[in-house]
Amino acid sequence: MENTMKAVVYQGQGQVILTDRPIPVLQQDTDAIVRVTLSTICSSDLHIKHNTVLRAKENIVLGHEFVGEVVEIGSAVKKVRIGDRVSVNVETFCGDCYFCKRGFVNNCTEGGWELGCRIDGCQAEYVRVPFADNGMTKIPEGVSDEAALFNGDILATGYWAASIGEIRPADTVLVIGAGPTGLCTMMSVRLYSPANIIAVDTSGERLQVAKENGLADICLNPQNTDVVSKIHELTEGRGADCVLEVAGGEDTFTLAWQAARPNAVVVLVALYEKEQILPLHQMYGKNLIFKTGGVDANAGEEIMKLVATGKLDTSCLITHKAPLNDVMKGYEVFEKKQDGCIKWVITPYERKEHEI
Amino acid sequence: MENTMKAVVYQGQGQVILTDRPIPVLQQDTDAIVRVTLSTICSSDLHIKHNTVLRAKENIVLGHEFVGEVVEIGSAVKKVRIGDRVSVNVETFCGDCYFCKRGFVNNCTEGGWELGCRIDGCQAEYVRVPFADNGMTKIPEGVSDEAALFNGDILATGYWAASIGEIRPADTVLVIGAGPTGLCTMMSVRLYSPANIIAVDTSGERLQVAKENGLADICLNPQNTDVVSKIHELTEGRGADCVLEVAGGEDTFTLAWQAARPNAVVVLVALYEKEQILPLHQMYGKNLIFKTGGVDANAGEEIMKLVATGKLDTSCLITHKAPLNDVMKGYEVFEKKQDGCIKWVITPYERKEHEI
Amino acid sequence: MENTMKAVVYQGQGQVILTDRPIPVLQQDTDAIVRVTLSTICSSDLHIKHNTVLRAKENIVLGHEFVGEVVEIGSAVKKVRIGDRVSVNVETFCGDCYFCKRGFVNNCTEGGWELGCRIDGCQAEYVRVPFADNGMTKIPEGVSDEAALFNGDILATGYWAASIGEIRPADTVLVIGAGPTGLCTMMSVRLYSPANIIAVDTSGERLQVAKENGLADICLNPQNTDVVSKIHELTEGRGADCVLEVAGGEDTFTLAWQAARPNAVVVLVALYEKEQILPLHQMYGKNLIFKTGGVDANAGEEIMKLVATGKLDTSCLITHKAPLNDVMKGYEVFEKKQDGCIKWVITPYERKEHEI
Amino acid sequence: MENTMKAVVYQGQGQVILTDRPIPVLQQDTDAIVRVTLSTICSSDLHIKHNTVLRAKENIVLGHEFVGEVVEIGSAVKKVRIGDRVSVNVETFCGDCYFCKRGFVNNCTEGGWELGCRIDGCQAEYVRVPFADNGMTKIPEGVSDEAALFNGDILATGYWAASIGEIRPADTVLVIGAGPTGLCTMMSVRLYSPANIIAVDTSGERLQVAKENGLADICLNPQNTDVVSKIHELTEGRGADCVLEVAGGEDTFTLAWQAARPNAVVVLVALYEKEQILPLHQMYGKNLIFKTGGVDANAGEEIMKLVATGKLDTSCLITHKAPLNDVMKGYEVFEKKQDGCIKWVITPYERKEHEI
Repeated sequence: MENTMKAVVYQGQGQVILTDRPIPVLQQDTDAIVRVTLSTICSSDLHIKHNTVLRAKENIVLGHEFVGEVVEIGSAVKKVRIGDRVSVNVETFCGDCYFCKRGFVNNCTEGGWELGCRIDGCQAEYVRVPFADNGMTKIPEGVSDEAALFNGDILATGYWAASIGEIRPADTVLVIGAGPTGLCTMMSVRLYSPANIIAVDTSGERLQVAKENGLADICLNPQNTDVVSKIHELTEGRGADCVLEVAGGEDTFTLAWQAARPNAVVVLVALYEKEQILPLHQMYGKNLIFKTGGVDANAGEEIMKLVATGKLDTSCLITHKAPLNDVMKGYEVFEKKQDGCIKWVITPYERKEHEI
Repeated sequence: MENTMKAVVYQGQGQVILTDRPIPVLQQDTDAIVRVTLSTICSSDLHIKHNTVLRAKENIVLGHEFVGEVVEIGSAVKKVRIGDRVSVNVETFCGDCYFCKRGFVNNCTEGGWELGCRIDGCQAEYVRVPFADNGMTKIPEGVSDEAALFNGDILATGYWAASIGEIRPADTVLVIGAGPTGLCTMMSVRLYSPANIIAVDTSGERLQVAKENGLADICLNPQNTDVVSKIHELTEGRGADCVLEVAGGEDTFTLAWQAARPNAVVVLVALYEKEQILPLHQMYGKNLIFKTGGVDANAGEEIMKLVATGKLDTSCLITHKAPLNDVMKGYEVFEKKQDGCIKWVITPYERKEHEI
Repeated sequence: MENTMKAVVYQGQGQVILTDRPIPVLQQDTDAIVRVTLSTICSSDLHIKHNTVLRAKENIVLGHEFVGEVVEIGSAVKKVRIGDRVSVNVETFCGDCYFCKRGFVNNCTEGGWELGCRIDGCQAEYVRVPFADNGMTKIPEGVSDEAALFNGDILATGYWAASIGEIRPADTVLVIGAGPTGLCTMMSVRLYSPANIIAVDTSGERLQVAKENGLADICLNPQNTDVVSKIHELTEGRGADCVLEVAGGEDTFTLAWQAARPNAVVVLVALYEKEQILPLHQMYGKNLIFKTGGVDANAGEEIMKLVATGKLDTSCLITHKAPLNDVMKGYEVFEKKQDGCIKWVITPYERKEHEI
Repeated sequence: MENTMKAVVYQGQGQVILTDRPIPVLQQDTDAIVRVTLSTICSSDLHIKHNTVLRAKENIVLGHEFVGEVVEIGSAVKKVRIGDRVSVNVETFCGDCYFCKRGFVNNCTEGGWELGCRIDGCQAEYVRVPFADNGMTKIPEGVSDEAALFNGDILATGYWAASIGEIRPADTVLVIGAGPTGLCTMMSVRLYSPANIIAVDTSGERLQVAKENGLADICLNPQNTDVVSKIHELTEGRGADCVLEVAGGEDTFTLAWQAARPNAVVVLVALYEKEQILPLHQMYGKNLIFKTGGVDANAGEEIMKLVATGKLDTSCLITHKAPLNDVMKGYEVFEKKQDGCIKWVITPYERKEHEI
């Protein structure tokens, strides 16, 4: 019993339970074992639950966004030590293959999105982290666990999306989607000093969060605004200089390219559930650049420095917080966006007397 | 009678005739009048003929690819002089608007593709060229009219496509389509010194031209080869570092993204006749970059220097040559690709005795 | 008498006077005449006064940093209209030559630094601005003359310097010199979201301004700190990711390269009075990149948007303000940095009753 | 005796001998032992001999440019196997530190120029190569040892210099110095398709090699030509678009910046023996970019592909070839540039009967 822990396990189509699992052990000399101090529920977990993530495996422990304390390291681990507080990248990568050498860690031939998808993840008390030297960033003194919690996944995604958007000072940037990743994208876009960030979402509540926290300058709700017309009106008829599509909705791909000015970069971050229509004959001559894909999560050090100096601040995302004991309720509240939930944060399991 | 000339006129859906038209005169002080010494038939002319170019106007003189001699200039023209031999850019652009200032001349608010589309073109004896200082490049001594003939359109297109492909020395580059623009793309790609250029076409004859003229290292015909598999085999399983889609065929968009390695640039130069399917959910994580659009034809000086120093040589494209008198036959031969026709070149109208 | 105005004239070595000059008139159809509403004294004016600017001409009206109201335009001027409030670029450029086409307006074959150097400048009641469409940026409603005053010169310089520094989020950036241009450089660097801006100056007073206005995170005075050691200490022994040298002092070039980390960009903005020593044999392997030169002042629109949205705010620079009547006192106070003077701003000449 | 080999050893100031040394053995699990099949004498060896390389150590085996056969590998080596033919990078680098992660391997905190400088090099029968997975590139079938011999040092240097020169098709590029590295630089510059490569050297013989092998379009000898004037004449008065200084002579730094057009990149590859004068006040406004330093030798795969496809061909460099037995004569001939010597190539030691 003393080698077991509580963990959230995906049992196939629709089935997710909180159960007992063995505490993980080192498998490779580049592994580390981390005691999870804070983790989250992510919309990707819901995608796995609903069986729309092809690479996901049954019977794995869910969860890929967390911070924790290193409790054991393999013999080849050099950069982190036992006792270090760390944030962990969602991508597992070797650092050494053709793609990793070029910064394309999402296409690592030894990794990619593994944690909570193909190997056991972090909605548990402990987690094994492969290639620990690549995947972990030490949390410096003065930065709380909460402040660093999103560094490895949704903030890494927003940061990466903004970094490939070719945004220049004084640009007008459109971010479609004001959910957790959309908000992280906006705060990352702000690092490049556009003149205006325009946020689009169908939730007035979430737009409000973007506005109140200084993440968006202008908020548009397609339910009551002709977004494309409004953006052209705001940009002397040209359209947005850069568009970041983080929503993945029914019409959001179309909105993205229509709202872009000629020669704009359109970053497609969203995880779509089906194919899109690309009407090249209609957009001929508009010379758009589409950048597609999933986060290359390898900017941990930079993100941590920006968090430490207050230039990235995700505190507005944490609307709910409860111990692992309550995680099933968390799944429900998060999925249904009840009670204004943006992010449900999981604190460690609290053992009742009889469980100790 | 002495103010008229012969010209090819588009009369609407399917109707193209050789007829008499007034010789053009200066309209703006930035115009020039050019006597056409060589012009061509381009596949875009066929698109207009078949009424699939939305911006085209009826009753215009066709033709947008040519060289000639300047015979008259407006008072504000500074860079070219009467008597200069010039090649002319397919794009008309002011040089001064938001887009021109950024090099995006295809989106010039005063221009774009005008010649032979919205204003009278070059399949004639004379043509008026607006914004002459931007649109013309002087042909230096030692460069023949034939050598510079394609600089303004198909070579400009291939050159631009290659320039946005982010090609690095030693890359493997795939060019889909070995027609006139495809061949120009290959020779422009070669300027960036990839290790290999792979050409794909369904015409063995055209692949042969690519191969024999040193424009492609490897030629693949999808009619007898599984192109995607072959490319993976040639690239250690990764795919092409850059793909340029110049064909616009039924399956060529799909081939383009499937043959690309993760994180590749896919340049979509072809003019499609209908929309494409973009299966983002299938290519998620592959992180492709799609660059779409029409040529920003503003590299006239660079292209001319490369032609003058022999680094670009389009002589293999000229399979047919005849005076304007025979242009209607030219349309037929070029459209049906009869007799190995790659490019039909039009020399000046030859007046019979009774016409003088 | 009614066609004359007051103006500050450079009469050669050390001689600057306030005197009467004819009101300027249009000379080219691309000119505009501007009524100066606010101008400044710049350290470059002092360089001219002391005869260290080789290109400067005697007997010209000084001054090149100003805002005003357009009162007359040439027939070819398109973008500005009579009555517009405008800020004016220090560089005069044609927009059309080899260098202008590439954004290198400082090397315009028709211009460069002309105003207040080779042609009459803005320390006057009126000024003629050549190539008005390139040199002027309209000041939008809601932006005061004061807020836009530095856009065309010292803010343009700081903005340009930061833009070529290849600064990335989370970098550590060193700015040497906290004078007017140094402060503008810091606020422009901040647009790229470095983790830390380190300011160096021998004036504690100026460092205080940088600190209090949020322009620098860390301030170092070489009179009481070993700056190179301190920077290495702050950067895990590596040095600054980017260095901008805006001081032009005795030892500041040496400080710049010694404080830079290997492979850093070192931007040399300062106007030196003599040659520097470049000890390549000592810095071999450090692989530094030096970017030298003078402002390419062609980002007027971007800067104006950033001023309008509050992302650039130069109000802390204006320590002194007085009418043109008092300009000679201004020269003295500014040159001797008396009374905490950072910038001396000149308001219009105030006519006494007998002068009207 | 059977564990010894012949090796060239630096014994301090001016003293280099051929002597016996123990055959090297593995020290780290990332090491490999290579049997040297071809090596060279490099001008850097002469710098060590003359004690002008500060980081060099006495009593090391000289030599850092070679190919060979892997005879032993450490347990952590993954990419090369026993029996592989390999070329070896002059830089030793860990692949993992702050600088390596950014491609700045020359500043690797664990390496840099080590072989034949701080640890035993390749002018011997065997050599130990640290970080073998980073330092070695497999030579494919069809590429001879001779063809790959320079990949790791002088060709890597030329390739790197060209890659940072920001060269665009149709540019005019000046390469100062037509010695071995200069010639490698020219062939690497050619990969970027400039319109013209201008070579400068005081040796007519070496210029001849550049010309005859198609590496330079125009050759200038400062002994009989005013190089700066000539270059301005060739470039419409502007100067070279990119300058690569590979000579390190008395006046070559000055020539480099004077021959560059405004806003050009000037790459300073040469290893100078003393400091240079940087007259910023004279070049103010010319806005030059100086890129300084030593090779980041990490493009082994790309270079090998370009050699394999004939796009890089160094055969013209090999003027002399002899076994290790004759290496002392080689030092003399190479240093004095006798007999048209460009590169002296060392083949394996040939044991006389009594030595076996």
